[in-house]
Amino acid sequence: MERNLLLTVEYDGTMFHGWQRQPGQVTVQGELERVLSVLCGRDVEISGTSRTDAGVHALDQKATLRGDFGIPTDRIALAANNLIEGSVRILDVKEMPPGFHARFDCVKKTYKYVMSREKTVFDRNHKWQTEERPEISLMREAAEYIKGTHDFACFQAAGGAPRETTVRTVFSLDISQDETDTEIFITGDGFLYNMVRIIAGTLYEAGTGKRKPLSVKEAIEAKDRSMAGLTAPPQGLYLAKVYFEREMI
Amino acid sequence: MERNLLLTVEYDGTMFHGWQRQPGQVTVQGELERVLSVLCGRDVEISGTSRTDAGVHALDQKATLRGDFGIPTDRIALAANNLIEGSVRILDVKEMPPGFHARFDCVKKTYKYVMSREKTVFDRNHKWQTEERPEISLMREAAEYIKGTHDFACFQAAGGAPRETTVRTVFSLDISQDETDTEIFITGDGFLYNMVRIIAGTLYEAGTGKRKPLSVKEAIEAKDRSMAGLTAPPQGLYLAKVYFEREMI
Repeated sequence: MERNLLLTVEYDGTMFHGWQRQPGQVTVQGELERVLSVLCGRDVEISGTSRTDAGVHALDQKATLRGDFGIPTDRIALAANNLIEGSVRILDVKEMPPGFHARFDCVKKTYKYVMSREKTVFDRNHKWQTEERPEISLMREAAEYIKGTHDFACFQAAGGAPRETTVRTVFSLDISQDETDTEIFITGDGFLYNMVRIIAGTLYEAGTGKRKPLSVKEAIEAKDRSMAGLTAPPQGLYLAKVYFEREMI
Repeated sequence: MERNLLLTVEYDGTMFHGWQRQPGQVTVQGELERVLSVLCGRDVEISGTSRTDAGVHALDQKATLRGDFGIPTDRIALAANNLIEGSVRILDVKEMPPGFHARFDCVKKTYKYVMSREKTVFDRNHKWQTEERPEISLMREAAEYIKGTHDFACFQAAGGAPRETTVRTVFSLDISQDETDTEIFITGDGFLYNMVRIIAGTLYEAGTGKRKPLSVKEAIEAKDRSMAGLTAPPQGLYLAKVYFEREMI
């Protein structure tokens, strides 16, 4: 019998051309579909919550698929992980009601962005290695202007899927720091194309004195991309948590 | 004027077919020689302290080369790092007396071996991801038999360069552990082919009850490879520190 399955997936995005299936490219979706089609005995399509870009990682990507597997749901992860490329791992598979969809039923997401002033080869694909260590108090001051519901057009890169509106709500934006690393956690109801990376770049500029914290407020009000900061590189970005309506998870 | 230079090099071994230059393969030595030959304006050869295997990492590999560079010694690292593949980095370059050689003047080396019971995709190339968490007291008990000067033939894999003797001295062998990771630090005057990986595998077997600590003593005395444990995989191994005679560093 056909089941509607919700996958929880972790991946190191380094070797992938992003989440979304593309002909001739190794992508996370493509790799998962390849393996799950083998297990299912027919071609399956999966829908991910977030279409992460090339080089971006996920600790908690979610995806739904409908399929009629010859094996019990609780064995699919192990079977798939044995066939799959080592930098993707299915952490969990559960059965959901028929109408549930990983993207449309998502109500909020948390991204993590990690920058480090330590330049070790071991972290080069997993952190943005910056020249300077930003001042956390300046970053937090700038971050205050980002929290809440705003038109975030200034934090949107060209090239994404067309959106009905550029208004989004940022529920929380927390920054922590140790000797070498600075971590940003941002939770919102949705994010525009490259929004988290532009916010990370803008906060870095505020934290290193390249811009005043107040300039972030001005950029948001002007809805002008050129008034926001640089787009931080993909390797520091992690899809950290996906939230659905309480009754659905 | 020709200088005799000592390089300190860090690398992530994941993408390399080991240290040693091989035709048609991407190796650390090959990559360094390629870039340094460009900077030197003629073909240079470098000699590394340790010929690490494919997938093995280095925090502190040393290498010497003779060359006549058009740039000052203290600028070579920066210039080379701008040309080099991102998973290798020259940390330091210094001038040495003419007779100094990275391999022949090395008096001891420290290797680190990291195993983890945590299975995250982000560490898969940098730790041995084990099924169990070994018991550190059992590992330490087994490690006592390895310290000191012994014939370590039981810890030598076939296929290495021929050695005059299989007697080596292990000066220290320390093991530490947190919730998920177990780290082994082993310092010796020299190591046989795959010796650290076989020791790591043997200590893991002792720590998980697959063998008695005393069996390590018996394997050493019997000089019998088949009495030692499995060869732990390369991704957990790091060349951590190279020591020269005090007057030379």
